[in-house]
Amino acid sequence: MQNLPFGIFSTQKLRDRRAGVAISDKVLDLKAVSKAGLFTGPILSKSAGPGGCFDQGTLNSFASLGQPAWKEARYTVQHLLSATESILRDDHQLQADCLVPQEEAIMHMPVSIGDYTDFYAAKEHASNMGALFRGKENPLCPNWVHLPVAYHGRSSSIIISGTDVRRPRGQVHGGGEGPPTFQPCNVMDFELEMAVIVGPGNADGTPIPVDQAEEHIFGLVLMNDWSARDIQRWEMLPLGPFNSKNFATSISPWIVTLDALEPFRCSAPQQEPEVLPYLRETNRGNYDIPLQVAIQPEGTQQPHTVTRSNLRHLYWTLPQMLAHHTAGGCNLRPGDLIGSGTISCPAEDGKGCLAELTAGGKVPTSIGGKPYRFLQDGDAVTISGLCEKDGLKIGFGNCIGKILPARPGPV
Amino acid sequence: MQNLPFGIFSTQKLRDRRAGVAISDKVLDLKAVSKAGLFTGPILSKSAGPGGCFDQGTLNSFASLGQPAWKEARYTVQHLLSATESILRDDHQLQADCLVPQEEAIMHMPVSIGDYTDFYAAKEHASNMGALFRGKENPLCPNWVHLPVAYHGRSSSIIISGTDVRRPRGQVHGGGEGPPTFQPCNVMDFELEMAVIVGPGNADGTPIPVDQAEEHIFGLVLMNDWSARDIQRWEMLPLGPFNSKNFATSISPWIVTLDALEPFRCSAPQQEPEVLPYLRETNRGNYDIPLQVAIQPEGTQQPHTVTRSNLRHLYWTLPQMLAHHTAGGCNLRPGDLIGSGTISCPAEDGKGCLAELTAGGKVPTSIGGKPYRFLQDGDAVTISGLCEKDGLKIGFGNCIGKILPARPGPV
Ligand SMILES: [Ca+2]
Ligand SMILES: [Ca+2]
Ligand SMILES: [Mg+2]
Ligand SMILES: [Mg+2]
Ligand code: NI
Repeated sequence: MQNLPFGIFSTQKLRDRRAGVAISDKVLDLKAVSKAGLFTGPILSKSAGPGGCFDQGTLNSFASLGQPAWKEARYTVQHLLSATESILRDDHQLQADCLVPQEEAIMHMPVSIGDYTDFYAAKEHASNMGALFRGKENPLCPNWVHLPVAYHGRSSSIIISGTDVRRPRGQVHGGGEGPPTFQPCNVMDFELEMAVIVGPGNADGTPIPVDQAEEHIFGLVLMNDWSARDIQRWEMLPLGPFNSKNFATSISPWIVTLDALEPFRCSAPQQEPEVLPYLRETNRGNYDIPLQVAIQPEGTQQPHTVTRSNLRHLYWTLPQMLAHHTAGGCNLRPGDLIGSGTISCPAEDGKGCLAELTAGGKVPTSIGGKPYRFLQDGDAVTISGLCEKDGLKIGFGNCIGKILPARPGPV
Repeated sequence: MQNLPFGIFSTQKLRDRRAGVAISDKVLDLKAVSKAGLFTGPILSKSAGPGGCFDQGTLNSFASLGQPAWKEARYTVQHLLSATESILRDDHQLQADCLVPQEEAIMHMPVSIGDYTDFYAAKEHASNMGALFRGKENPLCPNWVHLPVAYHGRSSSIIISGTDVRRPRGQVHGGGEGPPTFQPCNVMDFELEMAVIVGPGNADGTPIPVDQAEEHIFGLVLMNDWSARDIQRWEMLPLGPFNSKNFATSISPWIVTLDALEPFRCSAPQQEPEVLPYLRETNRGNYDIPLQVAIQPEGTQQPHTVTRSNLRHLYWTLPQMLAHHTAGGCNLRPGDLIGSGTISCPAEDGKGCLAELTAGGKVPTSIGGKPYRFLQDGDAVTISGLCEKDGLKIGFGNCIGKILPARPGPV
């Protein structure tokens, strides 16, 4: 009753995709709720009819309506489901029309993603990766403490949790003088991330002030930015990662709103040196979201947790990312995806990718008693997130993907 | 009658966007042609009716149909307009319905762009920029001759020729120990490029073989990848350009098909060392497309040509770009935009951006008798392209944009 995350689902019977809210082991079908005329608030009574914001294959239109609409939807759903409210409680036909068992729901991409950007906002990750890719002397580039570094990613290959991921082939260079080879990626990695789903956009040329940035955040999902490290190492100079990242990025299906996360607001790391004024926040904060990554190799009986981290460690906050992204005038659109970058924390098991966990493969970790370096064919990777406090639980569910063997192909 | 480029237009009277073909000083309204039942070929008689591929606000659906549909459309249009064909010639009402004077046509984005990628395919440009950004010792990164380097760009801020471009503000660092400042870009540049509009896409996980890549190219447009060099220099390590590029990218409105360009096919630079098999072409070639860039400072009477280059100089061909982009499994979608990178050639006036033309501002060029380094507020930049051979002309029109002063903003 507190979480009420939004997603897009269908079932074997209800073939057309529609909006839903997850409630314990059920999904509330918001198209059916609209059809029954139960969205009676000032915004959704207009926007949620047939063909309206819950009767579409994506949540972009609902995301674009902004906080007042999201709060109104939350209020209506909480009211409908409250023990004292009789409309749904006493109408078994209506219950049957509106509530679908979660195991029957087939989840789809919650939004159509116009643009996908990935930040690099955890200091621990940037330092660890910098040391691996460029050496230990200067792990952080000089700009890192002054701006949230980011790159544009590929939106066509963003996939919903549960979709298998084909190991990419690509150019790899062993070092030295010889030519590169074209081969299946041999250093497959996950990246533990969370991502913002953008709500209302901004007009071209009109930056989002950092203190207003949360109004542009519809909610958060879990994200796995699959990374082919051997391909990345060879291709990334001077314009950044390309084929090492663009073959797949997985997100979890349920969008958790900032309203739901409000009880888990927490402080963010202090920034030193002080940032420029356009990045200075009146109420700087993060969210306390414990995150885990588990790997289950093919043929094993259960997933093995390899990482425990937390969104709270981000050096650059979500509002700072949006403010910086738009500072030069770039427009965001509803449904855009903005990744946090790999969320590593200082703990030994708090590293958000295998490159960090194994020091670039030099110090294997262990799974099922065997040394483990990088993802093998058949391995399933599950990212999960769950906030807990005083009996209140806000879960993000899972973001899961299994590695398929590379296709046969040219050399 | 040979060019027949496709675009999306409206007029004061015909408010809803529709597909058109440019023919000398007219635009043939393909929605009206469809409505008159004149697309009688096997594909378009089905796909071009009301609400069909020419009666939409974009050409994505037509692009997705592939070469047979594009050829059929070309054939029908050429047939309709031929002197011996009476349907249009003798029907003045039909002429009035189908032909719009070009000056009445308001041009719009020709496609909805899902993803935008920018390559870096001209050796001259990569060497010049490498020397500026990293020093003259190693201007080309070692990977450059082995793969077509590229980065993902921002699709939300791609704009149609004629749209003004606001000078971005951003972080700039003067060098040395001090902190960066946030200020209007002081080193505004254009980049002379051409771009592929993707036709049929490829399935996730299924690379496009280099010898089949042209089937996935709907056509070409001119492109100006506006670049804020001072912001770029500070932000781009280690993940590539971000705010220095994402505030605006302009494209020309008319998509010229490869069919129209066939007479201008020419050889491409020989590649040494030999490329890997997935990039080896059976019939390697470029197109001989002379390109110009002209700058007209505010208050001056005429544009001043600063650059003369040619697409033929690209070291990496368009098919190699598509083959590499998809080699790891990345899926392209109809309407995707794939930029060539700045097209510089060896000639002194053949450099495709001001950073190259002025050696990073150190050696000014001259406009109207005054030294000129980078773009000033009010300057209009026009990229144009025109192929000519044996009396045949294939024009790309113009890609134009004027620099507006930066918005007032925080420091
Ligand atoms: Ca990442
Ligand atoms: Ca460029
Ligand atoms: Mg990715
Ligand atoms: Mg650009
Ligand atoms: Ni009530």
